[in-house]
Amino acid sequence: MGISNKIEENLKRASWIRAMFEEGERLRKIYGPEKVYDFTLGNPNVEPPAVFKEELKRLADNPIPGMHRYMSNAGYPEVRKAVADVLAEESGLPVNENHVVMTVGAGGALNVVLKTLLDPGDEVIILSPYFVEYKFYVDNHGGVCKEVPTLENFQINTEAIAQAVTAKTKAIIINSPNNPTGVIYPEESLSALDKVLSAKEEELGTDIYVISDEPYAKICYDGIKVPNVFKYIRKSIIVTSHSKDLALPGERIGYLAVSPKVPKVDLVMEGMTFANRILGFVNAPALMQRLVTKLQRERVDIADYEEKRNILYENLTALGFEMVKPQGAFYLFPKSPIPDDIAFIKAAQKHNILLVPGSGFGKPGYFRISYCIDKQIILNSLPAFKQLAAEFSLG
Amino acid sequence: MGISNKIEENLKRASWIRAMFEEGERLRKIYGPEKVYDFTLGNPNVEPPAVFKEELKRLADNPIPGMHRYMSNAGYPEVRKAVADVLAEESGLPVNENHVVMTVGAGGALNVVLKTLLDPGDEVIILSPYFVEYKFYVDNHGGVCKEVPTLENFQINTEAIAQAVTAKTKAIIINSPNNPTGVIYPEESLSALDKVLSAKEEELGTDIYVISDEPYAKICYDGIKVPNVFKYIRKSIIVTSHSKDLALPGERIGYLAVSPKVPKVDLVMEGMTFANRILGFVNAPALMQRLVTKLQRERVDIADYEEKRNILYENLTALGFEMVKPQGAFYLFPKSPIPDDIAFIKAAQKHNILLVPGSGFGKPGYFRISYCIDKQIILNSLPAFKQLAAEFSLG
Repeated sequence: MGISNKIEENLKRASWIRAMFEEGERLRKIYGPEKVYDFTLGNPNVEPPAVFKEELKRLADNPIPGMHRYMSNAGYPEVRKAVADVLAEESGLPVNENHVVMTVGAGGALNVVLKTLLDPGDEVIILSPYFVEYKFYVDNHGGVCKEVPTLENFQINTEAIAQAVTAKTKAIIINSPNNPTGVIYPEESLSALDKVLSAKEEELGTDIYVISDEPYAKICYDGIKVPNVFKYIRKSIIVTSHSKDLALPGERIGYLAVSPKVPKVDLVMEGMTFANRILGFVNAPALMQRLVTKLQRERVDIADYEEKRNILYENLTALGFEMVKPQGAFYLFPKSPIPDDIAFIKAAQKHNILLVPGSGFGKPGYFRISYCIDKQIILNSLPAFKQLAAEFSLG
Repeated sequence: MGISNKIEENLKRASWIRAMFEEGERLRKIYGPEKVYDFTLGNPNVEPPAVFKEELKRLADNPIPGMHRYMSNAGYPEVRKAVADVLAEESGLPVNENHVVMTVGAGGALNVVLKTLLDPGDEVIILSPYFVEYKFYVDNHGGVCKEVPTLENFQINTEAIAQAVTAKTKAIIINSPNNPTGVIYPEESLSALDKVLSAKEEELGTDIYVISDEPYAKICYDGIKVPNVFKYIRKSIIVTSHSKDLALPGERIGYLAVSPKVPKVDLVMEGMTFANRILGFVNAPALMQRLVTKLQRERVDIADYEEKRNILYENLTALGFEMVKPQGAFYLFPKSPIPDDIAFIKAAQKHNILLVPGSGFGKPGYFRISYCIDKQIILNSLPAFKQLAAEFSLG
């Protein structure tokens, strides 16, 4: 009767997140939005780069006949070539437009990749703390998630991954710069992961794909550059979007790219294009495909993000909160002063500070701060954090 | 090893469609595009209405801060209200923005609806001839398709539907104006369907939803108006897109709307919004949502389509081809002069006429003509159709 049992169960479980959101709305009505310190959302408050707006104006003023029609399910060849050119340059590999499918954001890309790869019961390794949507995406396509914890500093634990691999392991999802921790995996980690997986493939006679979810790849600080995964991992697939680097999350524009080193890559790409069609995406939005074609080397101004990271990292550390200094994305993932992270975020709410508990990322005992919000709100929040730290006898 | 078995099998089966597409490309290279009569694609060759272009220009010239950010997974309240207002007016029911979710086209909407409704093994009735994507969409979410043939005139066979309903039947998909036949279901048929399904629900103690896929609802001729399904069917869900009525297929903008008469409609809408998120759509493209808000009562010029329908219907009927005169969409679905429709479309190819066999829609012995192409190509094709008819001794 009624809707799917699984969906109904998930709605019940999701209700505490909604309760928290509603509490935020309630607080904003009482205290005003500038006095509620909402660190819960990953919705960038910046605008797209000026060149995006110029391109949009240029196209609106000079519409091209047929520019809103269907194109190949993989997307326009020009935009796929523009994506491939940058990937070829970064990886040193012969990436071309046939290795790229334009998608409805990274969320769309992940679903297309998982639909293409998974047989029922296939296992996908995810690293905790993880982006909670991964579990839904894997389940959508009949897969089973295997959670493997990262190290204390949130870096990849290759040994633990090796132990988790079975004959049913089809893929592992990595996310660097990471949501929720902000850490970036260095080249050596990627190479070590490739080595471990190759040995396991040899042992088990299987294929194990590394799905690298990289929407924050251009949001990195301290002069660090995120390594190109194609260079270090043979069976790698990049999924990403322009939600963060061009600040277009509502427009649902992203892509997937498969390393030319992947065996039978033509068949894999045919599968991806077909999956993009039958999942109902059909193609990435046409106008946005055109708009991002020339913007593959652009990004939003990240100096603002870096300043916010610094303010929060320095102040919270000084108050006694413990955390790994993030090198990218726009998140901090400090330790909760008490093991019960849900109790802690409820306490923070009393100071008008809204946080997401680590439990929401498969990592109880931590909490996530998302700092893609106005600097002034962050500055306003510091006295409240001080009171919160005092309440938990930190410092 | 490698990609999913199911995807690989589907790619093999899809190869004859690709072979036909490649044959078309080959013919175009030899004879020139104006001498190849390609009736295979449902990609409208018209441009969006002028008011769409003006809206796009206005927004590009006056960007609203935050207009590319995430919004609620259901979409902007304003556009949902604009959709709901028209539906309320057409149905006479209290439809409001909470009954609408903006989606990535009708393909996205159908996947969201099926994900929300289906438990594994649930049955979905589809009416042959049917849009082939329905089978993939139902399978994506663990459902099982039950095919029920329509009547000789392609209208709903309510008795056959009643016989096909089991305790596992969760939904039936109807499509009016229909792809591939162009027929429109009149009010009486919808009422009769509701009656039959209500009786079955009563008998079996189940819920059976009618999913009405209506992307062609505004493409109808002879002064006919497509009846609003909410008015005649209690548990009805509309899925549609602006791909055809505003000629925006590449932009992936559509919606789903649930009748306010559906029991527990709030829970159903919560499920739909959640499914839109976890399937990776997240939300319908932001800019397109804004653009279609004021265009809910607009449509492309259909006089052109009607003229093309008339030219083809009259000429092909005169040549001896048998077909139901379509009242909407931009398709004709004539009987193949020989039972083997694949052999017939291969024969047509020799006259540079490209058609889709009825087998592709679960209805062998017929073929589909899609006439959303240049009028001149249609006129050029008539002598070739004459030769083809002579070859099969028609007329």
